[in-house]
Amino acid sequence: MSEHPGVVPSVASQPVSAAEDLAVHITANLDLVDHHCHYLSRQVLSQGGFEALLGESHFRTPPGCSAADTGFGLAVRTFCPPLLDLPACAGISDYVERRAQLGVDEVHRRLLAGGASTYLLDTGYLPDRPQRFGRAEELAAWSGGSVAEVARLETLAEQVAARLGGIGGGVARSSGYADALSDAMGQCGGALGWKSVAAYRCGLGIDWSRPSPGRVREAAAEWLSAGPDIQRGWRLEHPVLIAHGLWSALDTGRPVQIHTGFGDNDIRLKEADPTLLDPLLRATADGRSAIMLLHCWPYHRQAGYLAQVWPQVYMDVGLAVPHVGSRSAAVLAQALELAPWHKMLYSSDAFGLAEIYHLAVHSWRRALATALAPLAAAGFHRDELVRLGSLVSSENARRVYGIS
Amino acid sequence: MSEHPGVVPSVASQPVSAAEDLAVHITANLDLVDHHCHYLSRQVLSQGGFEALLGESHFRTPPGCSAADTGFGLAVRTFCPPLLDLPACAGISDYVERRAQLGVDEVHRRLLAGGASTYLLDTGYLPDRPQRFGRAEELAAWSGGSVAEVARLETLAEQVAARLGGIGGGVARSSGYADALSDAMGQCGGALGWKSVAAYRCGLGIDWSRPSPGRVREAAAEWLSAGPDIQRGWRLEHPVLIAHGLWSALDTGRPVQIHTGFGDNDIRLKEADPTLLDPLLRATADGRSAIMLLHCWPYHRQAGYLAQVWPQVYMDVGLAVPHVGSRSAAVLAQALELAPWHKMLYSSDAFGLAEIYHLAVHSWRRALATALAPLAAAGFHRDELVRLGSLVSSENARRVYGIS
Amino acid sequence: MSEHPGVVPSVASQPVSAAEDLAVHITANLDLVDHHCHYLSRQVLSQGGFEALLGESHFRTPPGCSAADTGFGLAVRTFCPPLLDLPACAGISDYVERRAQLGVDEVHRRLLAGGASTYLLDTGYLPDRPQRFGRAEELAAWSGGSVAEVARLETLAEQVAARLGGIGGGVARSSGYADALSDAMGQCGGALGWKSVAAYRCGLGIDWSRPSPGRVREAAAEWLSAGPDIQRGWRLEHPVLIAHGLWSALDTGRPVQIHTGFGDNDIRLKEADPTLLDPLLRATADGRSAIMLLHCWPYHRQAGYLAQVWPQVYMDVGLAVPHVGSRSAAVLAQALELAPWHKMLYSSDAFGLAEIYHLAVHSWRRALATALAPLAAAGFHRDELVRLGSLVSSENARRVYGIS
Repeated sequence: MSEHPGVVPSVASQPVSAAEDLAVHITANLDLVDHHCHYLSRQVLSQGGFEALLGESHFRTPPGCSAADTGFGLAVRTFCPPLLDLPACAGISDYVERRAQLGVDEVHRRLLAGGASTYLLDTGYLPDRPQRFGRAEELAAWSGGSVAEVARLETLAEQVAARLGGIGGGVARSSGYADALSDAMGQCGGALGWKSVAAYRCGLGIDWSRPSPGRVREAAAEWLSAGPDIQRGWRLEHPVLIAHGLWSALDTGRPVQIHTGFGDNDIRLKEADPTLLDPLLRATADGRSAIMLLHCWPYHRQAGYLAQVWPQVYMDVGLAVPHVGSRSAAVLAQALELAPWHKMLYSSDAFGLAEIYHLAVHSWRRALATALAPLAAAGFHRDELVRLGSLVSSENARRVYGIS
Repeated sequence: MSEHPGVVPSVASQPVSAAEDLAVHITANLDLVDHHCHYLSRQVLSQGGFEALLGESHFRTPPGCSAADTGFGLAVRTFCPPLLDLPACAGISDYVERRAQLGVDEVHRRLLAGGASTYLLDTGYLPDRPQRFGRAEELAAWSGGSVAEVARLETLAEQVAARLGGIGGGVARSSGYADALSDAMGQCGGALGWKSVAAYRCGLGIDWSRPSPGRVREAAAEWLSAGPDIQRGWRLEHPVLIAHGLWSALDTGRPVQIHTGFGDNDIRLKEADPTLLDPLLRATADGRSAIMLLHCWPYHRQAGYLAQVWPQVYMDVGLAVPHVGSRSAAVLAQALELAPWHKMLYSSDAFGLAEIYHLAVHSWRRALATALAPLAAAGFHRDELVRLGSLVSSENARRVYGIS
Repeated sequence: MSEHPGVVPSVASQPVSAAEDLAVHITANLDLVDHHCHYLSRQVLSQGGFEALLGESHFRTPPGCSAADTGFGLAVRTFCPPLLDLPACAGISDYVERRAQLGVDEVHRRLLAGGASTYLLDTGYLPDRPQRFGRAEELAAWSGGSVAEVARLETLAEQVAARLGGIGGGVARSSGYADALSDAMGQCGGALGWKSVAAYRCGLGIDWSRPSPGRVREAAAEWLSAGPDIQRGWRLEHPVLIAHGLWSALDTGRPVQIHTGFGDNDIRLKEADPTLLDPLLRATADGRSAIMLLHCWPYHRQAGYLAQVWPQVYMDVGLAVPHVGSRSAAVLAQALELAPWHKMLYSSDAFGLAEIYHLAVHSWRRALATALAPLAAAGFHRDELVRLGSLVSSENARRVYGIS
């Protein structure tokens, strides 16, 4: 289990040792549960549309620049073209053309083959665009896997607000907010867990104590009477209502996913540091609901610490795993410095492009092989390596979400 | 001194180059001063008791999970069983059984052999449990090294409070607090340095200016009249008194250790970032006491910067060195990006288990070999490598603490 | 594009694969634009003077310690002596002696050979010491490159204050501050961009909204009537005037460089985290001026995220590239996890020593080769590798600053 600054990697087809060989072989065959992902685009994409989904920016790249010139874009060019019958390292325009030729169904089937067997789909992002972004059934068909739902708390709250709110009536109806949210959550019987995007809305540095019913009513009155945002519609940013949603979710006993770390430019990164959750984690350490820290990069070491010391805390390095390309092994290694193997999960956080699904799987398997190889070299038995790899790839998710 | 993303490591017995060979050989023979460690458990441990000491959590692992499934637990299984006549990679239950068979003294002697020659023992953590946790003399006997004391400031203050405080009398006696603390510190003549756990009590982001005598009296009155916590007894969390303790320590001219970075779940990680000490470091830059930043992970790069720019600042990556297992070389390398070699020290921060002592030594030697190997490859003479390795392993500690 | 914890590096003269060979060859020949550097010392330096410029501290090293015992100092000893006809790994005293023997002009010519073809010189640091620190023409002569100016906003403001300010008259003249600054900026017609050291003065966590004319007048009155600092002279630390300077610079359409991350001990590192700029970046996302995040370490991953999601944001890992020695590849790799290749630039941030210029170039080429090698191994065509390497080494700078 030595550790040294290294030498340029050999290509994957030339493993340098029997230990690496074994680790690669093990991870290539592990079952995966993707415990957090999003809808796939169901449209034939132009090059512009494709590039817009490659990264996390909502803006166009500067003139003369390509959104494919990123670690992720280069990984797409490296690994995906052969799956569409093109040579590796093909240019993006050739790739997009071939993509269109094959059609969405075929592309998705090819890129999702060999991926996860189970997907937990966050149905709360762009839920109202089924024409553009497919439905759960489609993901199941394309992937051949089973798909279960994770319900987004803020989206549920916004649907409640849309029913209750509006000029004049909002304040009067605010006393019904908590019950209405509770009803809405009750209708999510099929959801295996909950998701909060507090990091995007008010940041994670809020007062996490459980708000009293009076405080919830008051906050609901503030929000409902303010009405929807002209551009964005009903958008929950009120920290009291976000905390209330989270505590309501924790009360159900089902795992609660919390977005931490990077995301699109809608997030303020500094406010997405998972260590800001400290008061919440202290308050829920003897509770019955697991808290799943999603993504975490570049605060994944911090998340690993939290996953070690708090019994209810789990983590993943999803989103980073596909997006940092060849660096995914380095990121996973940092997260596993302190995160126990029984607390780490796999997720893709893929959205829109099947390429993100594909590269998440590919990068995860490679990153995990890198984590296992020194253990193989140190003499751990194959069964033990399989056990560890299975924990982080699927078993932890199955145990925590109750997936059989 | 090239630097490349690397290839899976060969096992230690197959060094890839003469440079690495040389570096490993040098570090295997370096004298070590462990400038910060804690008591060893002197009990025969059950598997539960053993696993509870493996990590930094105060909580049990979730059902079906093992606390040994961490980077550190896997390192224990890799390296320690052969020292107890078991095969490498033995399971934890076999290991714990063998441990009990051999008995505490024999296990400690075997695991501490080849370790540090000098230990600076923080005597302030669980000072009242000598039956469970051994005394300094025992550490000396088990290790064959010499043991000196580091006195914990908050523990001294709490002993003072226990004498002065209590309902009714506290406020009246608060005027004697500063003198009583001064007396208590005066009785620590044998202590080579001081330790503060401010990070655990009020965080490092407090007002670090030296409190006036009046402000100290006032704060002492607040604390003493509040009385001891029912569960935790006298516990110093008052930022004014913590700052006062630290300045009192700085006045002695002896090095002052400050816990920074991760620790058990009692810490709020965000409040343990050493850059929060900025005002204190500015105010003490021309002072005569060294400030030792302990542990620092995951803020060890930041600590390296502070160690470079402030003349009185030193650092270690203790606690991380054993706990991150095979990643210790990566952590040390990041710390040495900016930290001068004359400002880095070795510590284990070991507590309870002799395995932590052992792996701290083992991981440090490997990590240091990794840092020296590129210098060897670049052509630095063996004597120069020994000089650099000796600085960080023992000489800096000897110079700063005045150990002959 | 595999990624593994690695093995000790071979020396540069023994590349381990054809892919690395190709990457090293490509980067050795890339044109470089150094988009941020400082004056070179034009004095013959004593060993003390030389060591004082090796690091970022303003203080002397502790007795018995050498400022050359750092990652950077060891890199200087590894790579620079042969350029002055000494053996590699020579001691610092021999090196400084040889340096003096050759004379400043010869040393500078040798160390700057093979470096950047274009330098953007921040003329605002120590602008009044031309005897000690050379002028732009000298840098051009020593390097054989062309030199253009970057004007430092705070220095311009301080020159304005020196004209307008002073006891009694300051308040009265404060109404002319904005116009005078505007005039001073108008006289910087040759400057290709602007530089702000807000991080050193008030930190990056200020109110970044554009101050109203009335608020600027008020702030100018505060500053001008306070007068110059006795030791430091006129020193702009007023957050309103710093924000005003930055917005004035953004209005010109020319790129605005912002120091982020580490620097000398004058900076408070925590206040130099580029994510603190979030409100400014949101407010300028549709603007016409590029914002260049300089240095960024240890927040370079965060900067990479900002460079990905905001269209106007660029970054470099200057200062770190030379100062972290053999770790520059690791730092660049982390920055490129999210930073697009069309958003990364080269800079040295060199100041004082030609060795910093030299090692910045050397470390950059090695770091970039390390980033390109896996792409070469993955099958990307040489032309594509050259294109990517050229973007980050020169083309991005040429495009953004309008350098032909």
